[in-house]
Amino acid sequence: MSIRVGIVGISGFGGGEAMRLVAGHPEFELVYAAGEGSAGQRLAQRFPGVPAQLADLVIEKWDPARLPPLDVLMASLPTGASREALARVPGHVKIVDIGGDHRYADGWTYGLADVWPSEIAGQTRIANPGCFPAAALTPLAPLLAEKLISPENIVIDAKTGISGAGRGGDSKFGYAESNENLIAYGLLRHVHMPEIESTIARLSGGSATGLVFTPHLVPMTRGILATIYARGRATTAQCLDAARRFYANSAFVRVTDTPPQTKWATGSNLAFVSYAADPDRNLVIALGVVDNLGKGAAGQAVQNANLMCGLEETAGLEGAPVWP
Amino acid sequence: MSIRVGIVGISGFGGGEAMRLVAGHPEFELVYAAGEGSAGQRLAQRFPGVPAQLADLVIEKWDPARLPPLDVLMASLPTGASREALARVPGHVKIVDIGGDHRYADGWTYGLADVWPSEIAGQTRIANPGCFPAAALTPLAPLLAEKLISPENIVIDAKTGISGAGRGGDSKFGYAESNENLIAYGLLRHVHMPEIESTIARLSGGSATGLVFTPHLVPMTRGILATIYARGRATTAQCLDAARRFYANSAFVRVTDTPPQTKWATGSNLAFVSYAADPDRNLVIALGVVDNLGKGAAGQAVQNANLMCGLEETAGLEGAPVWP
Amino acid sequence: MSIRVGIVGISGFGGGEAMRLVAGHPEFELVYAAGEGSAGQRLAQRFPGVPAQLADLVIEKWDPARLPPLDVLMASLPTGASREALARVPGHVKIVDIGGDHRYADGWTYGLADVWPSEIAGQTRIANPGCFPAAALTPLAPLLAEKLISPENIVIDAKTGISGAGRGGDSKFGYAESNENLIAYGLLRHVHMPEIESTIARLSGGSATGLVFTPHLVPMTRGILATIYARGRATTAQCLDAARRFYANSAFVRVTDTPPQTKWATGSNLAFVSYAADPDRNLVIALGVVDNLGKGAAGQAVQNANLMCGLEETAGLEGAPVWP
Amino acid sequence: MSIRVGIVGISGFGGGEAMRLVAGHPEFELVYAAGEGSAGQRLAQRFPGVPAQLADLVIEKWDPARLPPLDVLMASLPTGASREALARVPGHVKIVDIGGDHRYADGWTYGLADVWPSEIAGQTRIANPGCFPAAALTPLAPLLAEKLISPENIVIDAKTGISGAGRGGDSKFGYAESNENLIAYGLLRHVHMPEIESTIARLSGGSATGLVFTPHLVPMTRGILATIYARGRATTAQCLDAARRFYANSAFVRVTDTPPQTKWATGSNLAFVSYAADPDRNLVIALGVVDNLGKGAAGQAVQNANLMCGLEETAGLEGAPVWP
Repeated sequence: MSIRVGIVGISGFGGGEAMRLVAGHPEFELVYAAGEGSAGQRLAQRFPGVPAQLADLVIEKWDPARLPPLDVLMASLPTGASREALARVPGHVKIVDIGGDHRYADGWTYGLADVWPSEIAGQTRIANPGCFPAAALTPLAPLLAEKLISPENIVIDAKTGISGAGRGGDSKFGYAESNENLIAYGLLRHVHMPEIESTIARLSGGSATGLVFTPHLVPMTRGILATIYARGRATTAQCLDAARRFYANSAFVRVTDTPPQTKWATGSNLAFVSYAADPDRNLVIALGVVDNLGKGAAGQAVQNANLMCGLEETAGLEGAPVWP
Repeated sequence: MSIRVGIVGISGFGGGEAMRLVAGHPEFELVYAAGEGSAGQRLAQRFPGVPAQLADLVIEKWDPARLPPLDVLMASLPTGASREALARVPGHVKIVDIGGDHRYADGWTYGLADVWPSEIAGQTRIANPGCFPAAALTPLAPLLAEKLISPENIVIDAKTGISGAGRGGDSKFGYAESNENLIAYGLLRHVHMPEIESTIARLSGGSATGLVFTPHLVPMTRGILATIYARGRATTAQCLDAARRFYANSAFVRVTDTPPQTKWATGSNLAFVSYAADPDRNLVIALGVVDNLGKGAAGQAVQNANLMCGLEETAGLEGAPVWP
Repeated sequence: MSIRVGIVGISGFGGGEAMRLVAGHPEFELVYAAGEGSAGQRLAQRFPGVPAQLADLVIEKWDPARLPPLDVLMASLPTGASREALARVPGHVKIVDIGGDHRYADGWTYGLADVWPSEIAGQTRIANPGCFPAAALTPLAPLLAEKLISPENIVIDAKTGISGAGRGGDSKFGYAESNENLIAYGLLRHVHMPEIESTIARLSGGSATGLVFTPHLVPMTRGILATIYARGRATTAQCLDAARRFYANSAFVRVTDTPPQTKWATGSNLAFVSYAADPDRNLVIALGVVDNLGKGAAGQAVQNANLMCGLEETAGLEGAPVWP
Repeated sequence: MSIRVGIVGISGFGGGEAMRLVAGHPEFELVYAAGEGSAGQRLAQRFPGVPAQLADLVIEKWDPARLPPLDVLMASLPTGASREALARVPGHVKIVDIGGDHRYADGWTYGLADVWPSEIAGQTRIANPGCFPAAALTPLAPLLAEKLISPENIVIDAKTGISGAGRGGDSKFGYAESNENLIAYGLLRHVHMPEIESTIARLSGGSATGLVFTPHLVPMTRGILATIYARGRATTAQCLDAARRFYANSAFVRVTDTPPQTKWATGSNLAFVSYAADPDRNLVIALGVVDNLGKGAAGQAVQNANLMCGLEETAGLEGAPVWP
């Protein structure tokens, strides 16, 4: 019998990707879709290429008091919109919150699935990591765990495709103005900072003092590359070895000798990590690549849902990336 | 003494391009800028790269009753917004209406400057052609004038960059949704139809019966390519010869043996035309390329203003296109 | 027991997409990959995101005399390169030729799978349609079959993403020169013309006299939109109805009321068709959208292979398109 | 009487942009153009939108022994190709080497024109800065000059549009593979490192020990953003003030309160700089934006040529950027 899944925030980019992955999942069945702007539409009106068996599912207005019987609920709501609403979802419904409201919140488990998979099994409340944290923490985790770098003074220069800015329709992200344009934003005060700091601290046992995180918007639709500068005396080979050990049993993290490209991950739940280090400069450069809507959002959410439900971690996520 | 120019609609794409061209014009001086959303800002806030001498010009709220002394006013307002307002501008101020409200309207001259330049000199009310008509009529004019094609059953398949859809901030044109996407729209009923029909009729002395015009949005910022299918027994060489004769004295129309590329025109007032014909199939394919913000809007407007003011037609428009 | 599949031309875009689809197929197993430039590499070197079970498959130099035991061979070779080579493949190996050499060739069946699915079952030599024909013939087929349009004087204005030009590395398709650029090419003499003419004739029982086909390169990676102008007295509703009847049992063709967008099909085997007609003008506009690497190449090839092998037509092709 | 200018490497992106700027320059006249692949073509064949007076100039094969009378030669040749050849150019011909062979070479002056304009006047051999150094050194110069940051352990994370990789036609930069893709490259060993180190040392009087420079390729045609992490106790306001003082007389450097966007500079010789600092973290983030073909290549070259010839620094460079 299939697992009944609902998605809230279906008309956003993260919710839409969750719909695509659930539609292709061998054990999941999409039985509920809720959205704001698209409420009342059939799924095929909103997503013309949706598989036929889902075409007539009507998108509902999101109301936690009026849910059908569900096993899993994936929530992709704007920041601030999910705290109160998700508290009203019955406790037996497993929730993956793709949004940002429950990361390191009481009663919620932080779902960095490739790093701490065993913590997720059997849980009912998982806070999916942010897209930037997913890209940055995946390459950092092995180095911090093996103390090859200091947790202090880490500089994360992250670049995301524009779908990472959400589908709010802000005219700042109009095509003609965003195309052929590159922007840094949120300098010294991005909302993902505390999540990254907390996770670095937890991984290292130390403190992420002096952390710098600078996000950039790149004129492409999907993909994140995090270029990270850390202090340590490790060699490139030691970093690569540490990552290969750390992720030896991971289905989704690939360690590569050469700098990964964002296109390698498009449409998949993969993360690519690589390193270049210079002990003489006390420098380790760590690189992390994910699809911001895959490992950075919906892919990770499905992976978490699989673990919560006791399925194979890879169920519904085996597909190769889309190239070119 | 320089010619005092005002621009209304400065924060749109057409108005912004007019600002760029006026700023670099040897005889024009920008003395007035009006906008809607940007009223109250200094020009340098809205356009950070504006030349220093214009940086402190304050964008005003558009009010035809409160204009400074002006010689020329360029208006780039949304459709429907300029009829009443421009009627209140003093008669001695020369107006080029880049918007669509006055094409083939009483008291206004249609400013297809490369086809009918002599009609524009000395006028005070010029309606700038639409961007699609500029791209389509430039290659058609020589063929219609020499009766190499029939004015009937012409099919215009036109493709524009997304700046052609304006800067209204419609979320339909958000980056993530417009990128890697191609759309036909306005089938059988685009607002530019009557303008094209009237001009074909005037050029040919016949009637544009059966005209078909299909615009498409292409994921690029600037540029229009019109691919036109007409009926006639001319050869490719005859078409090219006709165009070379017709535009022999034109500074801005280039006739090329091979299909023109939109990038050839970027940032310029140039139009490129070419042809491929098959007399056996009673077929002439005409191709027209313009920058929708150049020859399709602000470039043509400056050319018209030059002619209205008795300047060299090319003043301020000599620059080579931007490539790549 | 799984069906053993080989792919020749794996390092091209079509071959790469075939690899992606075979890797995710429930009945197919990729056991052989051959390429030119990539021979000797492991599959994971060429495609860093390839599923783990395929990572170590070594790409071989293509040699029809040295094939492993195979049930199906998919060939995606440059035009002219497959005639002789494929003739040397053992007769019991089912071949889908994604390249252009065998369309309407003796001994080969034309694999327009949504139109003539029953012809494909049990065959061993299928010529996959070209990407432009797939986009254009899918919307035309119902109109021609029901004689709603004339087979004569059809004008196909087709626009493709740049992956349609192949991966030959021609510097004409370098990023900086192709980006923000739009080009018509191959006017009056594109290589896909005879295939389209033959199929129109077969569908209509008449002759495709006066066919015009103009391809364009659009600055996007994937996707084709064919905008087609035909002569007929049908209404829009009659065209839509005809298509809905014609494709009532099709898993992959979607008939839409509004103009389809190329992004609706990205990464899928779907085709979208729509129509706008004006009986007063004796005009039918037909629109067809496909992913040039999906329904236009590898998706269609997998569909054909499914039919040849007696599988469900949709096996391995159920995934929703990638959006955004 | 106009100044006679020659350009070598005209068919590359840098040479093409130099051609565009020289064509629009009030004092310069292009009298010689040399290229490799395009030798023998008329300029209008290579650049269809070139101004009419230059259309018939024939591109010659580059041979320093066969130059016409010239006042200025701009050379945009591949690395390694200009040392020997430029040594054979007569001494009275002023040379601006846009390529990389003469930066900090004996007998050549380093042409960082906004920082050391007075050194350039009257010189005959100027080495134009590299595109990345231009983007990074412009924001760093005021901080180093005023000792607001340490010259040690500076991290430069730079992002360039793909025209920065040149027009060599490397299939790595094909459209379909570069689009929607983001790559870091040249980690720890980029060729621009020594130039940046030397200039930081000269500006600071100290040593650029521990410099890190990581370039990235971004899917856009033009533009560079350098995000720079340095150590110092200055506040944001102190950094902005230092830059405003340092560039008070500069026509081309704009200091902005908010992070600059690459599109602000497109097609211009402008550089934008901004800062965000946190004294508590001992951190200064400096941002620099240029058009890699403008201030990063041809714009800077024209500025240098102006200074060498005793013209106004801004001659031919007054145009506003192209937007959008």
